[in-house]
Amino acid sequence: MFTHRRFKFCPNCGAAVDYRVPADDNRARATCDACSSIHYENPINVVGTLPVWGEQVLLCRRAIEPRHGFWTLPAGFLELGESCADGALRETDEEAGAQIELQPLYTLMNVLRVGQIHLYYRARLLSPTFNPGPETLEARLFHEHEVPWEELAFRTVRETLQRFFEDRRLGRPFELYCANIE
Amino acid sequence: MFTHRRFKFCPNCGAAVDYRVPADDNRARATCDACSSIHYENPINVVGTLPVWGEQVLLCRRAIEPRHGFWTLPAGFLELGESCADGALRETDEEAGAQIELQPLYTLMNVLRVGQIHLYYRARLLSPTFNPGPETLEARLFHEHEVPWEELAFRTVRETLQRFFEDRRLGRPFELYCANIE
Repeated sequence: MFTHRRFKFCPNCGAAVDYRVPADDNRARATCDACSSIHYENPINVVGTLPVWGEQVLLCRRAIEPRHGFWTLPAGFLELGESCADGALRETDEEAGAQIELQPLYTLMNVLRVGQIHLYYRARLLSPTFNPGPETLEARLFHEHEVPWEELAFRTVRETLQRFFEDRRLGRPFELYCANIE
Repeated sequence: MFTHRRFKFCPNCGAAVDYRVPADDNRARATCDACSSIHYENPINVVGTLPVWGEQVLLCRRAIEPRHGFWTLPAGFLELGESCADGALRETDEEAGAQIELQPLYTLMNVLRVGQIHLYYRARLLSPTFNPGPETLEARLFHEHEVPWEELAFRTVRETLQRFFEDRRLGRPFELYCANIE
């Protein structure tokens, strides 16, 4: 069971919190006796794209931790007030400076140990030129045989790429793929 | 723009936080000068099911706020350490005591004003008998013409039901439906 405990103090009043199971609940929650508040912790969403130009896919080499120097699809944390699709577009612009047309949601993966859901949309690149932001060392296109499989930043990136090349090779429709990453 | 600000005090050290834009960022974040931590706020996921028995769908009448007494599909907040599918199964068990076989993800809706993503899976009921938990006043099956449209608890429930009946009427495949709720 996931036991990450983010709260030591109450974000509402600043008193120390205690983790215990509330009366009508079955999980330990950060509970504040000073102001009688309960603070829940939930998985967060990472949204991104798989941008395609002809036979090639776009990858970005990370200029930030974690996984500095490794290759990733453009992706990042979904922000309050934005849709998953808009977040994926924003991250593609911020990390790669790529112009895309967003296509349907393609992968949804539960990264259980870190409490994250990763959602990737397919995307059609409108141009093969990029303008990477400060979080990216380099953005470039790869044919399938060129993909640096041993230097990919995250397992959800690998699964999304593997699934894409497999669907394409088999001529399958690009249906939504859901998976759990333990 | 979404301006919900959850943190008054630092959950890490208990000092008062200030909302400001960090150096390498473009959004105001809860920033603690005492321990140099930054606290991010992100949308959270609500997961549920659309359980079907022949021509009928299962709805639950809420025994809790918000929307006490209104009808909903079984759904609730995704917990840390569980997949979206497992969360949807758990909520269906907790709220309806229904035995189901989970089917593919059916709707993904961004509820922008409250910072939530609602995800509903289709589900095949294995039995027409239910055992609702304490959050539910009543769980029962409805034919399309019986659905209490004016007494539904949430707009994402209405959209999911409308889409389902429309797909069924038109003989369309039940493809993933994505939408934004402003």
